[in-house]
Amino acid sequence: MTKIGIVGASGYSGSELLRFLVNHSGQLKVELATSETYAGQRVESVLPHLRDFIDLEFEPLEIETLKKRVDVVVLAVPHKVAMTYTPQILAQDLRVVDFSADYRLNNAQTYSDWYHTEHTSPDLFQNAVYGLPERYREKIRDAQLVANPGCYPTSAILATLPLLNNRLIELDSIIVDSKSGISGAGPKPKDTTHYPNRESNLVAYNIGKHRHTPEIEQELSAIAGESISVTFTPHLVPMTRGILSTVYARLKQPIDTEKALDIYNDFYQSEPFIRVLNIDEYPQTKSVLGSNYCDVGIEVDKRTQRIVAMAAIDNLGKGAAGAAVQNLNLMFGCDETDGLKSPGLMP
Amino acid sequence: MTKIGIVGASGYSGSELLRFLVNHSGQLKVELATSETYAGQRVESVLPHLRDFIDLEFEPLEIETLKKRVDVVVLAVPHKVAMTYTPQILAQDLRVVDFSADYRLNNAQTYSDWYHTEHTSPDLFQNAVYGLPERYREKIRDAQLVANPGCYPTSAILATLPLLNNRLIELDSIIVDSKSGISGAGPKPKDTTHYPNRESNLVAYNIGKHRHTPEIEQELSAIAGESISVTFTPHLVPMTRGILSTVYARLKQPIDTEKALDIYNDFYQSEPFIRVLNIDEYPQTKSVLGSNYCDVGIEVDKRTQRIVAMAAIDNLGKGAAGAAVQNLNLMFGCDETDGLKSPGLMP
Amino acid sequence: MTKIGIVGASGYSGSELLRFLVNHSGQLKVELATSETYAGQRVESVLPHLRDFIDLEFEPLEIETLKKRVDVVVLAVPHKVAMTYTPQILAQDLRVVDFSADYRLNNAQTYSDWYHTEHTSPDLFQNAVYGLPERYREKIRDAQLVANPGCYPTSAILATLPLLNNRLIELDSIIVDSKSGISGAGPKPKDTTHYPNRESNLVAYNIGKHRHTPEIEQELSAIAGESISVTFTPHLVPMTRGILSTVYARLKQPIDTEKALDIYNDFYQSEPFIRVLNIDEYPQTKSVLGSNYCDVGIEVDKRTQRIVAMAAIDNLGKGAAGAAVQNLNLMFGCDETDGLKSPGLMP
Amino acid sequence: MTKIGIVGASGYSGSELLRFLVNHSGQLKVELATSETYAGQRVESVLPHLRDFIDLEFEPLEIETLKKRVDVVVLAVPHKVAMTYTPQILAQDLRVVDFSADYRLNNAQTYSDWYHTEHTSPDLFQNAVYGLPERYREKIRDAQLVANPGCYPTSAILATLPLLNNRLIELDSIIVDSKSGISGAGPKPKDTTHYPNRESNLVAYNIGKHRHTPEIEQELSAIAGESISVTFTPHLVPMTRGILSTVYARLKQPIDTEKALDIYNDFYQSEPFIRVLNIDEYPQTKSVLGSNYCDVGIEVDKRTQRIVAMAAIDNLGKGAAGAAVQNLNLMFGCDETDGLKSPGLMP
Repeated sequence: MTKIGIVGASGYSGSELLRFLVNHSGQLKVELATSETYAGQRVESVLPHLRDFIDLEFEPLEIETLKKRVDVVVLAVPHKVAMTYTPQILAQDLRVVDFSADYRLNNAQTYSDWYHTEHTSPDLFQNAVYGLPERYREKIRDAQLVANPGCYPTSAILATLPLLNNRLIELDSIIVDSKSGISGAGPKPKDTTHYPNRESNLVAYNIGKHRHTPEIEQELSAIAGESISVTFTPHLVPMTRGILSTVYARLKQPIDTEKALDIYNDFYQSEPFIRVLNIDEYPQTKSVLGSNYCDVGIEVDKRTQRIVAMAAIDNLGKGAAGAAVQNLNLMFGCDETDGLKSPGLMP
Repeated sequence: MTKIGIVGASGYSGSELLRFLVNHSGQLKVELATSETYAGQRVESVLPHLRDFIDLEFEPLEIETLKKRVDVVVLAVPHKVAMTYTPQILAQDLRVVDFSADYRLNNAQTYSDWYHTEHTSPDLFQNAVYGLPERYREKIRDAQLVANPGCYPTSAILATLPLLNNRLIELDSIIVDSKSGISGAGPKPKDTTHYPNRESNLVAYNIGKHRHTPEIEQELSAIAGESISVTFTPHLVPMTRGILSTVYARLKQPIDTEKALDIYNDFYQSEPFIRVLNIDEYPQTKSVLGSNYCDVGIEVDKRTQRIVAMAAIDNLGKGAAGAAVQNLNLMFGCDETDGLKSPGLMP
Repeated sequence: MTKIGIVGASGYSGSELLRFLVNHSGQLKVELATSETYAGQRVESVLPHLRDFIDLEFEPLEIETLKKRVDVVVLAVPHKVAMTYTPQILAQDLRVVDFSADYRLNNAQTYSDWYHTEHTSPDLFQNAVYGLPERYREKIRDAQLVANPGCYPTSAILATLPLLNNRLIELDSIIVDSKSGISGAGPKPKDTTHYPNRESNLVAYNIGKHRHTPEIEQELSAIAGESISVTFTPHLVPMTRGILSTVYARLKQPIDTEKALDIYNDFYQSEPFIRVLNIDEYPQTKSVLGSNYCDVGIEVDKRTQRIVAMAAIDNLGKGAAGAAVQNLNLMFGCDETDGLKSPGLMP
Repeated sequence: MTKIGIVGASGYSGSELLRFLVNHSGQLKVELATSETYAGQRVESVLPHLRDFIDLEFEPLEIETLKKRVDVVVLAVPHKVAMTYTPQILAQDLRVVDFSADYRLNNAQTYSDWYHTEHTSPDLFQNAVYGLPERYREKIRDAQLVANPGCYPTSAILATLPLLNNRLIELDSIIVDSKSGISGAGPKPKDTTHYPNRESNLVAYNIGKHRHTPEIEQELSAIAGESISVTFTPHLVPMTRGILSTVYARLKQPIDTEKALDIYNDFYQSEPFIRVLNIDEYPQTKSVLGSNYCDVGIEVDKRTQRIVAMAAIDNLGKGAAGAAVQNLNLMFGCDETDGLKSPGLMP
């Protein structure tokens, strides 16, 4: 049995990880759940849906003694905080899955350009594996430090990978228009998450400035073998969970939707959590609600020689906690799908 | 292994049953899923969340040959339709779980008063067991015909049972004010389920006339040992799933909330799916979203000598398909909680 | 022209008052809009819907010099704050409309019992008029201090008045089950207004303890001529605006719905903002969205000898800012409906 | 006084027109409201928000006698139906505002390509004016037949016009990613408008095939003076009203956001219903809810040399009925803003 400690377990990624692990066959077990805000309180008093499932109290973090308690630490804390903890945890010979952005980028300059702070442990970049099994499955198995991907990047990358892998598109033509539920902003109330501001409302934000941009570009560039820049526009839509990314790119050569779908199906044929939809089917966020699935659909717009590729995920599922379980399964020799074989909640 | 046939499997109760059974350890297996509307289509083309989970095609119903295919039939069809099928199915020596109201009431006159149609097989009432395990667990185990309870009644009855069992309240004082998500109206589009009519909107309906009224009264009367009438007002609230029933009753004698909670905790102490909340905690529908749980909370209003008891369920979970799984588990000797030990989806 | 100063104009009641007055024919004009949080900022930078409508900057409050600027002050600040300002404003011989609860109750003991603080100017109670024109129209015309009613009380009282006026119900039998949108909690983000906590969720709160209870009781008692206690349960439903109050009471004598509707129609026949619905029509919150209307509907449940009376309002309209405009119109000799003759926004 | 007849007045565009005209100073008056479905019923029995505002009964359409009743006919009927009525109405020397697409395109072949039906009166194209005052104000004043623009095109065109007018962008680079509330689909219930299918859900539809595409292209081409093709992707988001169109285009030359905003402000400086937002402000649909406003915001993504232009409208306001009032005002010599000077409803 592998004992897991979740640091920041009362946040949305952390608590969703608690929820997913309820369904795990047992090799992964949460032994420690820390929370600054709720230390000393029973889990179910904060997360009432988990009543009768988790027999734990939130604890304060004691970073020095983690080794005595757990085998692996999942960091569900903000960036900057994660990079203060990670070196100390690795030094205890513990493995780490980090939900933050701190070890996703492999370039310290890019990190400081987008996050406006110096990275304090860029030496660890060489140990970090970007936790997208669809790209780095084998490396994840042995990784000491897994950087769990961002929610927007997961959807944008999974929608685009087959296009780049098969050199179907102009590299300077990629636009990612993403629409997200509000839970990505976390459990702390703020103006942008205030119900009356979001209900029946729709708005873009951080155009050209969102920090997930370099992460998308890094991974698309890696598969293309060339440096790629994308225009990325995130939007807030009135729902709690779910991201739909609509990716636009110009085709190098005419291709029809059927043929493009064949390419996608080939590319993802062994992937347990990518579902390529049939022709004329488009992904909808509710199909993957609460799950680790990513639904992908495409349409070629022949008139403009563009392809439109869409991916739908639950930002807290495949976009965060589900991906973490998948990574933990790989890291600790479990069946990769353990705890994750539940469909989305629909309607 | 028990082979299940779901008649009307593309509706909300039927499809939710498909979803729940994905998580079953295996003794219950869906062998046949019928649908008038979608016969001949793959399940995932209609229910995209179930892609990769259910390898079935919807079939037309052939009632005469059910016995060759399955061990038990779940009827997820409207009332009146259910009573035309049930005798034929029972005659094949198959067991039945019926989602409709046709065998919930034990009195043919009450049935025709509220459903405005004559019951065509009242002789089967003696074989039917009301499928609320919290009341009829033992009878369900052996039942040939289980009448799965209505969603509103489930919440209203579970909120009220301990009060009646302990003779705490005036029997003529019970008011049930229920608030429901829209999915209770089923998948067929109509004015009342049209998105623009329901979003950001709130309305009561069928006051004093809702057909779940006699079902609530029957079960409350049964535990009280006296005939009880209730005022029942259902409301539609802008959400897809979830019912919260707020039950008001006048206390015979003063009692404080703590003491009342003790009584509830005693009454439900062995129940796997009833969660009695702590003092100052009130049930919220999202805590049970997608699950088979029923969260119950209470508050005594000392000033008016009334108790307010609330129960939250997912109308498609404990209010329909979850309850059906619980009943099937009992009927076929599975662990009662098999397939159902998943928490609600929150946030 | 009457110059209005709104203290706390960036809150929801205050900003809704700004919006309503845009449609006023002109005698009422906002001269001053104060905001602690946004002092120095243009109104449209905070309230983007008002761009091109309000040519004002939010200012800090300078209470001593209000007289130089305005003829009447609308206090859109929390209780306790209101009672610190009101005496100073009245002393300047300015009239006041107060959105808070500070002058709604006419008994200092009741105030301190429910608000857990001593009232600091109970001597002003005799000058204050409860700003419900349907009850106190003539007094409002001359009032120095108008206590604008609470949103829940407005709906509960308007639903119930005709019943009490006509002595139709048992006075100890009144239960008010209210369902409200989230905007009643104001613009300041908190856990209870956090989008993921409210979307697709439903919960009761403050049962038996909500501070609007004594306000409801005071006004119902006043019309009944006897002391009345009610059980009041507010619920949060997933929408931004709107309250539906469902009121239950036991009839003294049998009466049918038609007859009861006649009584309601008589009682409200001259009221410009109360719309009594036809038989079989129930009020829905969207019919009054953004307006000053209150829609009322009723149903007699003959089986239980109870009447169910429902009232729907926009909590920021007839429940706050609309009522304030109506009161200001009365106070300053405008047509009572000036600025308010717009229908709800539907769908 | 100008007497208006609305054909199809119980649909969303028609009923919203009824609502807007309530606020008109009086020169425009609805004399006739037809409805196939509700003929013979009082308006308020179908549209409860209009109770006390519209003293009319829905009537069946008698096309031959329209001239006796009204001065102008607003057709709020589907395409194909509109082109059967329009010639008959024009023949009576009545003016027409048509909500449908039948007279928006100026090319019969394009019409039949996208609408899959032959146009039966292409000779009227020369009489029809595309009802976008921001482009065709003077022509609208004298038009016999005004083709009221589509909701998506209105937002897409208004976001893009200044870019094309000032030759800032590569003409083959335009992508329109639109997100719409559900009310655009009309009041007739169907699968796509069924509440459980849309709540908390997000999906694209009709990619490369939506019939608003040629309308966008026609108007963008007209201002550019060259033929333009766009990739247009509409999405359904969980809200009733509102469209946000996010338009992407590649800049011919570097330009910063400030400079681009200057260009937008110049272009729209005299427009009463276009509000160009400040730098760092993005349009949100709620700011224009229920109004005739279009909020426009832009951001230059320097890294990719693209401009992102966004426009938010209420699809039933500026996207339909509001625009119709604006057009009627122009056609009949009223102040262009009469009936339309109300802000959006926020929060």
